[in-house]
Amino acid sequence: MKTNRKLVLAIATALGIGRERVMTMDRRKALATIAGSITAAGVAGAIVVKDVTASQLKDTPLIRPEIKLNKKGKVHHDPLPYVKLDPDAVADRAYKNKLIGDCMYGVFASLVEELAEQVGGPYMTYPTTVTRYGKGGVMGWGTTCGTVNGMAMAAYLVSPDPAPVIDEVINYFQYAELPDYKPKDAIMDITPSVSESTLCHVSVSEWCKASGHKAFSKERTQRCAHLAASMARKLVMALNEQQAGTFKAVFPIPAEVKACRACHDKGGELENTRGKMSCTACHDKHEV
Amino acid sequence: MKTNRKLVLAIATALGIGRERVMTMDRRKALATIAGSITAAGVAGAIVVKDVTASQLKDTPLIRPEIKLNKKGKVHHDPLPYVKLDPDAVADRAYKNKLIGDCMYGVFASLVEELAEQVGGPYMTYPTTVTRYGKGGVMGWGTTCGTVNGMAMAAYLVSPDPAPVIDEVINYFQYAELPDYKPKDAIMDITPSVSESTLCHVSVSEWCKASGHKAFSKERTQRCAHLAASMARKLVMALNEQQAGTFKAVFPIPAEVKACRACHDKGGELENTRGKMSCTACHDKHEV
Repeated sequence: MKTNRKLVLAIATALGIGRERVMTMDRRKALATIAGSITAAGVAGAIVVKDVTASQLKDTPLIRPEIKLNKKGKVHHDPLPYVKLDPDAVADRAYKNKLIGDCMYGVFASLVEELAEQVGGPYMTYPTTVTRYGKGGVMGWGTTCGTVNGMAMAAYLVSPDPAPVIDEVINYFQYAELPDYKPKDAIMDITPSVSESTLCHVSVSEWCKASGHKAFSKERTQRCAHLAASMARKLVMALNEQQAGTFKAVFPIPAEVKACRACHDKGGELENTRGKMSCTACHDKHEV
Repeated sequence: MKTNRKLVLAIATALGIGRERVMTMDRRKALATIAGSITAAGVAGAIVVKDVTASQLKDTPLIRPEIKLNKKGKVHHDPLPYVKLDPDAVADRAYKNKLIGDCMYGVFASLVEELAEQVGGPYMTYPTTVTRYGKGGVMGWGTTCGTVNGMAMAAYLVSPDPAPVIDEVINYFQYAELPDYKPKDAIMDITPSVSESTLCHVSVSEWCKASGHKAFSKERTQRCAHLAASMARKLVMALNEQQAGTFKAVFPIPAEVKACRACHDKGGELENTRGKMSCTACHDKHEV
């Protein structure tokens, strides 16, 4: 009886239901309250409760934790716990996940799933399927490559200082010959290419030019799965290094981009834009 | 006693713990198993358990629901329940949320929070703070605008057919004079501008040109908060219409982009790229 009460309290605490509220309930009511909360919590992990109405759901207690603000009045950055991972293992998952959930999901879900196995806890229910929206540069729009988008979201989820990791992996995406990793379940070799852009449609065009294959070919689908693997692998290497205190950017912002930013970005004479993307892929070089 | 058993089973089912597994346990063990799961589920709502070690977390049972695949072997699209929302209410939230969590969070968190109030259930714990990564076109990179990225993720979360909604709202982002909504807590009027791009840095540059303000001015911060409000409002209008069966695109893919796609996109003679972004913002027009 005592043990059950303790467990009920532990459950309630985990769900953010006040101790006082549970202590004043009889056990049946406490369990009913908790059941309502868990239905909500369980659903967050991508189960959809099909047999409840909106008004029934409305009666479940609000358990979203309050958003904490930092000194600047911004949402406090509170990453989930990270442990050193095997870059190849995450890359091999990313290859397979890209083929069932597309590019953004490929990278994001693979980090979450590997951490669910290695760490457990929050990663066991962390929703991943929503990241399918990022496919083909946001629902086929050809804007930011889904492997870049998923990598940045994953880095933000787990890194206490995500900006340098994201900078490094995006510059790798732009300037390295990719893909540079052959997943263990690969069914073909892939010609690598250099994107010189963060954008899906540019990356695809450069690869079509290098490989001679078409944008909707089977080979391109495989290429993007190899690319997801390469990006997940590079992300894990950067996160491992950051955690070990040995992180150093191999792909810093190029001098050419820095030169453009000196006038056009923050504090520059013109200050009429922002960003770190390669400039000359779209804009002509010009003499200052 | 019977009621408790029923509740325990309901809790276990919501968490994806097998009925058989719970049925064969005594109540104390069943509650303990559930308690472990809920600790994980609670954490998914952005609470980080600070006083547990990785090995302790590893011992909690795996409760991620199995990913279902559709007939094409892709992750099954299973949106969360949506109810008609007030576009202005979500827009006013987006303005305020942009100022505390930046642009992608501004749009995404506002839809989730409004649905947490109106529907409850899954939205009460759905994690939102991770979307801060999208700020300034993915961590300041100036690639896809965070309001576009957050809108697309939100549309995918709730719409049974997200592509037409995302297409409509991205084309609105590209071709409408924005911002076109003044939030109720606005502190200034904002000069509108046309982005003709999905990209943060292009949108900011066009606005700097139209308004005469700099890219890192207080006015630009306010402008992007008004933009988040406009995008959230347009998204909700499109979702409401889609649910009512009255959705019709006001901003279809322009004929100019269709003309380019005829050769360059899927099934075209060249088929050397993909996407729906405005082409002529970056590429010269050319005669076929």
